Formats: sequence, structure tokens, C-alpha cells
Amino acid sequence: MSQDPHIPRPRIARLKSAMADQGIDVLVSFKPEHTFYMSGFNPILYSHPVVMILPASGEPTLLVHALRDAHGRDEGFVSDIRAYGVWSTTKTMGPRWQDALAQILSEKGLEQGRVGLEADATPMARWQAVAELMPRAELVDSSKLIDRCRIIKDPDEIAHARVAADLADRGMDAAIAALAGGGTERDAHNASLMAMNGHWAKHLPDSVEVADFGGLEGGIVNGLATWVLSGPRMFRNCDNSIARKPEPGELCAIFIWAVANGIHAENERTVAIGTPPEPHRRALESILAIRDEITPVMKPGTPLTDLYRITKRGLTDAGYARNIPGRIGHTIGIGAHEHFSLDGVTDVILEPGMMFTLEPNLRIPDQGVSTQISDTILITETGHEFLTRSRGGYIEV
Amino acid sequence: MSQDPHIPRPRIARLKSAMADQGIDVLVSFKPEHTFYMSGFNPILYSHPVVMILPASGEPTLLVHALRDAHGRDEGFVSDIRAYGVWSTTKTMGPRWQDALAQILSEKGLEQGRVGLEADATPMARWQAVAELMPRAELVDSSKLIDRCRIIKDPDEIAHARVAADLADRGMDAAIAALAGGGTERDAHNASLMAMNGHWAKHLPDSVEVADFGGLEGGIVNGLATWVLSGPRMFRNCDNSIARKPEPGELCAIFIWAVANGIHAENERTVAIGTPPEPHRRALESILAIRDEITPVMKPGTPLTDLYRITKRGLTDAGYARNIPGRIGHTIGIGAHEHFSLDGVTDVILEPGMMFTLEPNLRIPDQGVSTQISDTILITETGHEFLTRSRGGYIEV
Repeated sequence: MSQDPHIPRPRIARLKSAMADQGIDVLVSFKPEHTFYMSGFNPILYSHPVVMILPASGEPTLLVHALRDAHGRDEGFVSDIRAYGVWSTTKTMGPRWQDALAQILSEKGLEQGRVGLEADATPMARWQAVAELMPRAELVDSSKLIDRCRIIKDPDEIAHARVAADLADRGMDAAIAALAGGGTERDAHNASLMAMNGHWAKHLPDSVEVADFGGLEGGIVNGLATWVLSGPRMFRNCDNSIARKPEPGELCAIFIWAVANGIHAENERTVAIGTPPEPHRRALESILAIRDEITPVMKPGTPLTDLYRITKRGLTDAGYARNIPGRIGHTIGIGAHEHFSLDGVTDVILEPGMMFTLEPNLRIPDQGVSTQISDTILITETGHEFLTRSRGGYIEV
Repeated sequence: MSQDPHIPRPRIARLKSAMADQGIDVLVSFKPEHTFYMSGFNPILYSHPVVMILPASGEPTLLVHALRDAHGRDEGFVSDIRAYGVWSTTKTMGPRWQDALAQILSEKGLEQGRVGLEADATPMARWQAVAELMPRAELVDSSKLIDRCRIIKDPDEIAHARVAADLADRGMDAAIAALAGGGTERDAHNASLMAMNGHWAKHLPDSVEVADFGGLEGGIVNGLATWVLSGPRMFRNCDNSIARKPEPGELCAIFIWAVANGIHAENERTVAIGTPPEPHRRALESILAIRDEITPVMKPGTPLTDLYRITKRGLTDAGYARNIPGRIGHTIGIGAHEHFSLDGVTDVILEPGMMFTLEPNLRIPDQGVSTQISDTILITETGHEFLTRSRGGYIEV
């Protein structure tokens, strides 16, 4: 993927404005999600640190190992890319990232600045290394600053989210068809993976990547993920699929996370094998009624907590007061699970460009009842858009 | 997966012995790879911390969110599992992991102990949280202690590695066949994914999981990974496959990482589309000759550096002195890339139970020549075993 450095990415201005508010002179980030956020480059493997340096004023710099230098230049939108390390004939700033980083910060006149690093993601040893190479700087936590900026998605991110949501919908259709055909959890898992990867391979341009972020000792080459949990296994929430064929009357949950150029979409559905028993049907219908009540308020100006409040009231009225979930969704984007929850306390007012999952659900252990329905929602200028568009409701097959 | 707590896992004794040597009273770990190493439990999602508490003497304790409590009991081999958080009707130690951890350490009489945490993986904020809840304890870095123990694999880990290697071999066969049939990089990628997932779904028991470890904002549900890079794209080392069909005379690299119950195998091969040009052929044959020379010394008692020395001499003799790689492999297991390198300095003597990748390779940018061959090797009592067994050499299709 070769990205145009000139298309608008308002996130950089948002970050700089938040830095000015908090008196932060430079962000130094090692977190894969954030170096990508500010550079557009995902090397997939992070065993050699990728370091993003974003000063409050002046040009950003991306520091990568020589091994990733050409890849970073081709793929990212940062013009100033520097290399460290020893690899083949590439000329670098020296063998160690520490020295290269110190030199870059010194060039920018930031040795005595207030430096933002993410305390919730930067390993202790790396934090200390930065403290040692910048003895006159003050290190402060920038986790919340960046997380907050990420709530609003930029036009390039929204475009990628649409691609991811379309992949997730295709994966969902295939998984439902596999269950309808009498398949096991694993059959549905495989059908879904193949539908998503098959569409990507045949119909999406080379510029669309499905790599993800992650791993302390590896990397995620392919972030198109499905899991299927049938009957009582729905209570696992997340687990590998097994060779279990759901029984008539049981519910099955299909969970899909898709990613396109670093942006995620989530699509989750509950499939009933034949007619579900009354307590299951009633739980699903209560959830669908609550979703219908939430839908019209998903628009700019609504406090995020209103969505939770509607759910709480609706579940209470339906007799589920003991089973109210702690949250009914989360922000989504570079992370499949970003850091803001749709709960009773999160202080966010909906704005155009926000993306989150809508997933009020029930778990009632003593009745063996569980529901799983989730969509990826984009807040628009006038209201909202369901990015995931799979058949709604619960699906009897 | 329900694991027998009584089958031997010598790693726990190895860890305790290393702790005694270094005067560490308890390991507290949040690192997904390490909580799994000591407990056998991988919840896949780590947004609610999983905390492993391994005292130098006495019973270990695993602390999980209430949401994962039943899953942890079913899947892991630790008897003492405690829960924190609020979820449904599960009784917990309280809403916060911090308070639960303090209480567990107090029960075990460790409030004033030397506490080992991994400085290379524990985020700054979490390190500080532990320091605050244990003001009289001394926190020390346990990264190297645990990494060193991990070099030797236990019988259960070796059994899982064999399953992973078999999956990787099946993925490799399918990818080679797809390229032989005129497929693109992405066609070979998909064929490989389907071969691995298809075999898993149909032929492996429910006790075999293919989840991986990772992600600060997600999790790896499926760690069966392939990437294919053709012609000049081999220099990317790691990238998503594209819809490029390799041209006659070009080389293609196929990279496969498979995982079974948390243990990885790596299999990488170079495929030539027809007869490769002379410089490419010569590079491949030089690499194959070096592999042949290394093979007999892969046995207990050999210093790891000998493998690198043979490579360096062989490449120098063949005229590639300017292209000697920095390392020719790495340890592998819970991580696809564990932390010891096959290089000129790593101080490790081969012992039975060690697992590493053997991958001397060449990158010669000015000739456009690149090779990629890697196998997963197990050191046995008398020598070694290739766990990956795909057709060797370079493969003309």
C-alpha cells in the first residue's frame, strides 16, 4: 500500500491540539496501533521496535529497523523515515534505536521537553530506556490523550471500515449457511474464513491489507477472524470452535472480526437451530426491542450513556434486572476493542465520525440463555449508519 | 481443552529453581505467553488481565476475571483459580484485580518479598500499580529468568509442537501446489490456510486449539498463518500477499507459522517458477550445502554459536562475505519468535528438549537474489529431529 501523504488526516491536527492543551512537546510511541495511527505503516512484525516521534510543532519522524526501511517508505504517509540497525547495505543512524531516537529528539530541540509515552502499553524496560537517554526530559502518560483522539475516525479510516464491514458480512453469510447445512462449529468457522479470504484474494486490490497488530513474540499476518460457539458453549464468550454440531432448539453465536488496512469491523449474530425454547426466544426478542429503541438516538449530540440507560430500563421492564450487562458495546477502529465502553459512566457525547459496536446482550446462567448480536455503527452528520448489514434479528435455520 | 494437573510439567520446577538461585520469592506475570506457560490457560482475549502468581515455595494461583473463571477451570492445570470483577452471579474476591492480587500475596506472606515481573513486557502503568499495592516489596525484572527456562521444552509442549509442525507441512504442500498450478501469492495463501484449517476442523480433536497470544486491543483467535512473497517482494520479509502471479524464472518464498495448543512451528520454503537464473540457483545451493554441514552438529553439547560459525565460514568461502545475516534462526515455542538467536554471541549449549528454527538465508539486494528456507528443529537425547518435514531443497514447479 502506497499512501498519499497529502490526503487529509485530521487526526494529526487533533493530536497536536490535545498535546498543546496538555503541554506535551512530543509524543514518542512504540505501541503498534499508535505508530500505525500516526504513520500508516504496519510492518506486522515488531521484534525490532518501530518508533513514532510526533512533535507538537514541526515534522513527524518515523524510526524503523533497516530491514523495514523500504517497506515503511512504500507503505506509510510520513515523509521523514529514519533507519537504525545493521542490515545488508542500508545506511543507518547506528546500530541501536536508543541512540537514533536520542539524536532525532536532539535535532528537534526536545531534550528537555515534556515527552508523552503510553503508560498502559510501553513496557517498563522501554520506558526506562527513554528516561535514561533523555535525562533532562519529563516523561508523562499519553495513553488517554491518544485514545481520546481515536474516538473520531478520519475519512481514510472510515473508508477502510466499510471494506472491513463488507468482509465481515460475507463471513457471516457463509457461517450461517454452514450451520443451516448441518455443519459443526468448525465447519462454520472454516466457511467464514474462506468467504472472507476468498473475496479479499479475488476482488480487493493489492492496496488492501488484512494484517493486524499484535503479539509480543510474533505478529498477526491475517486478522480476518471468526469463532462459533454453540448451545451452552455461548457462555465461553471467546474460545476456539470445536467439532460440535448444534442440536435442534439450541442457539449458536457467530462472532466475526474483520480488518482492512488496520481498521476493524465486528459482526455478531445469534442463529437458532429450528425454533428456540420460549426463554431463549423471549430473551432475543427483548434484546431486539431494546436495539429498536436505541437506534433512533444514535446521532450527534446524544450522550453515550443514554444508550446504556435505555438498555438498563428495557431489561428491567422485561424482568431481567439481575442480568444487566456491564456494558453494551465499545469503540472500535484500529483495535477490535478500543478503550471506551458503552456503559453508565463513560463521558462521551456522540459526534460524526465516531465508530462503536452496538451489542446489548443477555447471559442468564440459571436458564442457560445467552444472546449475541453486535453491529458496527458509524455516527454521521445527521444520524448513524450500520456498517455491518447482515440479516438482523435472530436467524432460524 | 481440559488438562490433567498431574502430568509432569518440569518447567514449574525449573522456574522455581531459577527463582531460588536469584532470590526471587514470587513471580507475578501478566504477559499472555507466560500466564499460559505457567497455567495452560489462554482466554484469547486479555482486556481483563490474567495474573499468574507463582511463589518459590507453595502452590501457584491464577487470578482471572469472573467472565473467564469457568473457562480457566476447564482449560488450565492450576488448581487454585481465583476470580475478580463483577459478572453475572459468580462470586469474586472484589471488583478490582489490584485488590485481589494484594490479598493473594498477603495470604501467601509475600508482602515484603522480592517480586519478579517481566520488565520487557509489563506496561509501565501496571508495574507501577503492583509497586503501589505492595509498598514493602522489591520489584525485580524476571524477563530473562523466564525466557531462559523456556528454551527447554516439556513433553506436553513437544507433543503440541509435533501437531503444529504437521499442520505447517500440510499448509506448505498446499501453497506449493497452488503456485505450481499458476496461482497468485494470494491463491497460495488461501490454499495454505484452507489446508491447515480444513485438517484441524476434520481430523484434530476438540482438545487442539489454534488460538495464539497477542494483541493489546484484541486477540488472536486463529494463529495458522501463511504469507507468500514472489520475486522482488521477497525482500519485504513479512507482508500481506498480493494478487501477483510470479513470473517464470522468479523465486517465491512461502512462510508458514502454525500453532497447536500454544506451541508454534515454522516452515519456510523457496519455490522456483521454472529454472531459476544462475545467481539465484548458486545462492540456493550454497545455502543447502551449509544446511547439510550444520545438520550433523545439531545435537546435545554443541554450542549454539557453532551453527552460526559454520554458516559464516560457508558463506565466506562461497563468496558471500558481504551478505552474512545477523542470525540464522531463533528459539521457538510459545512464541513464533522466542528470544534467543542463532548468532555469533548467544551463550547456549544445545540440550535435549530445545527447539529452534534453522534458517541460514541470503539477501543480496544488488543481484536481486533472496532465499528463504526454514525448519523447526527439536534437539533429542542423541541428536535432533526435523519437526517440519516438507520436501527440502528448493522446489522447481
